[in-house]
Amino acid sequence: MNYKEMVFEIRSYDVDQNKRLKISSLFNYMQDIAGCHAEELNIGYGALIEKNLFWVLSRVLIKLNRAPKWNETLRIVTFPKGINKLFAVRDFIYYIGEERIGVSTSYWLLLNSQNLRPQKIESLNTQLLFDDNEHGLDVSLDKLKFDGNLSSPLERNVYYNDIDVNNHVNNARYVEFIEDYFSAELMSGKTIATIQVNYLSEAKINDVLTIQSGGYSEDERTRFINISNKDGSAKNIEAFIEFKN
Amino acid sequence: MNYKEMVFEIRSYDVDQNKRLKISSLFNYMQDIAGCHAEELNIGYGALIEKNLFWVLSRVLIKLNRAPKWNETLRIVTFPKGINKLFAVRDFIYYIGEERIGVSTSYWLLLNSQNLRPQKIESLNTQLLFDDNEHGLDVSLDKLKFDGNLSSPLERNVYYNDIDVNNHVNNARYVEFIEDYFSAELMSGKTIATIQVNYLSEAKINDVLTIQSGGYSEDERTRFINISNKDGSAKNIEAFIEFKN
Repeated sequence: MNYKEMVFEIRSYDVDQNKRLKISSLFNYMQDIAGCHAEELNIGYGALIEKNLFWVLSRVLIKLNRAPKWNETLRIVTFPKGINKLFAVRDFIYYIGEERIGVSTSYWLLLNSQNLRPQKIESLNTQLLFDDNEHGLDVSLDKLKFDGNLSSPLERNVYYNDIDVNNHVNNARYVEFIEDYFSAELMSGKTIATIQVNYLSEAKINDVLTIQSGGYSEDERTRFINISNKDGSAKNIEAFIEFKN
Repeated sequence: MNYKEMVFEIRSYDVDQNKRLKISSLFNYMQDIAGCHAEELNIGYGALIEKNLFWVLSRVLIKLNRAPKWNETLRIVTFPKGINKLFAVRDFIYYIGEERIGVSTSYWLLLNSQNLRPQKIESLNTQLLFDDNEHGLDVSLDKLKFDGNLSSPLERNVYYNDIDVNNHVNNARYVEFIEDYFSAELMSGKTIATIQVNYLSEAKINDVLTIQSGGYSEDERTRFINISNKDGSAKNIEAFIEFKN
């Protein structure tokens, strides 16, 4: 099987005041190793840009048994596990030492950079070796549904530090927006045990975004979040998170 | 001489849309290596917390000949170079390969965690080996002066991701605020060639900060920045930056 492994030292700037890894930093690591693996498979940023193609993360679900801590070494194993319609599916397993502390699965779209339309993964003509029996997390990632009431919107401006090499708000930055929205819960020591983010459309520099949430359950341990463009032009992401103490 | 060297791979999430290292990320690296070196010298976070002491960065000046780029490997060499009144002075030299791309010097205070008062560095009773002739940057860091007009204030909320293990807004995060304030300049490809930040007082979760700037020169290549608490309770930082194309 075709897989990649990388280790990340959990540095001071990737942890919060409780010395626990920020989930937004985990999103950075996750995307970094995926990018490095794609590079090795000759379907990375550099190889695709010549063909007017690039990868975008479309949906991702992460489950963590516990938060990694400052100065721990996080080992991530990742592997592509097949194609689901227009999505390339890639899973991740997170280890501290020999302890398997979490898992995730993700859906990626291959976009044409000229018209931003999804391309068939098969068009890459790359021999990817899949093992259909190998899973980080054996679930399919669906659209998120929420029928309850949403909180009044909090505004957030898009600045320089939110924009990445693809010239739009970085995936992990939306997760920062979510974490910041839940500052009170996270500062009081709650952690995010589960997070799913579905990326729907991109945001650009100087956009103003609005963040709203609603509880799936009365104890508010499970929440729905949506981030939209304030001018009404786009819904950027929908997310689900589950807190634990 | 007593020095430490570390290498940092410039990862996708530490660069901007122009694939250049964000200066705020460089501040993260700089503080991380300083922390690791202090740890080795038995005056790090863990050793000091037992004595109710901790380090705070008080002033820092970085000069860069060029911005490091995505996928380059940045090598940082750091060394303490003596004591200046209540400040411990530490310098840094930045290399890409054998190219010396930048230098910096920094002043650190040793604070008592009970009353937040500065302690004499000599109270650490640590045998630090200094070489007075060795410099990253041979200048003293003074208070910043600005007599011109300041722009109208831009507001910025303090959220979860801004707070570090010392339970206040992280030093590098102020640099993010500055970069974000200058989004237009940085997105258009200008880079920060020189930056000095003087940290004056701390900010906490849920504070609202205001950011103002003024030009030292007509071409606005050199700017003064100040960040204060909106409620008027504190001036948090003063900074100087010089842009180049």
